[in-house]
Amino acid sequence: MFYLIKKKRVTILTCQGRKEMKHLNLYEENDFAEKAFKKLLVHDSPYFKILNFNFKAGQELPVHSHEIEGQLSLLILEGEGEFLGKDNAAIPAKTGDVVISEIAEPHGLRAKTDLRLLVTIAPPI
Amino acid sequence: MFYLIKKKRVTILTCQGRKEMKHLNLYEENDFAEKAFKKLLVHDSPYFKILNFNFKAGQELPVHSHEIEGQLSLLILEGEGEFLGKDNAAIPAKTGDVVISEIAEPHGLRAKTDLRLLVTIAPPI
Repeated sequence: MFYLIKKKRVTILTCQGRKEMKHLNLYEENDFAEKAFKKLLVHDSPYFKILNFNFKAGQELPVHSHEIEGQLSLLILEGEGEFLGKDNAAIPAKTGDVVISEIAEPHGLRAKTDLRLLVTIAPPI
Repeated sequence: MFYLIKKKRVTILTCQGRKEMKHLNLYEENDFAEKAFKKLLVHDSPYFKILNFNFKAGQELPVHSHEIEGQLSLLILEGEGEFLGKDNAAIPAKTGDVVISEIAEPHGLRAKTDLRLLVTIAPPI
């Protein structure tokens, strides 16, 4: 198993030469930008992909979908906004909210305050 | 696709009879207990399983492992404690920390303050 390591502060704990655990802090690894939301690839493996998106108030991940089988979870780590769906659906989103969606279903997010989102996709896209 | 819905406040958004998104709030759905940590099954599907564990200070998820292929993520939603591993390993854990582990690697958690943990397992155990 190989991990895709993109940040210098990620710690790989090894024992007897074997990779065991990857450890990082989302608040230290990713910040915000005025120009556009900031994306951090937290993990990518054959099992799942984990991404962290940080939005400044007003920034948006437009509604999109992929025609593949699988599901994703959207977790609001902090902040307020709206989950977006097809037909202009907009569902209030706040800290601690989780949405589970088929990967093939349209989904997106709009931030009303600075907002940290964690996305987990299985199997990985 | 069927979702396992265990809590009354979970919302299933449907369109033309099709289940699309599941929506719940972790802070509203799960609380703490003095007797033992509290476990909430957030989602279970062929793709992944998502669990929320809430620990009072001092409570612990003992080190364990399962001899199956796959990985899991441990995310500290809030609180401080220690990630536990084999050979009595204990790694400081704080809000925003993510650990990725093979399912087959020993893993656990000890809370030093009240702590909310999100566990995502792919494929589901």
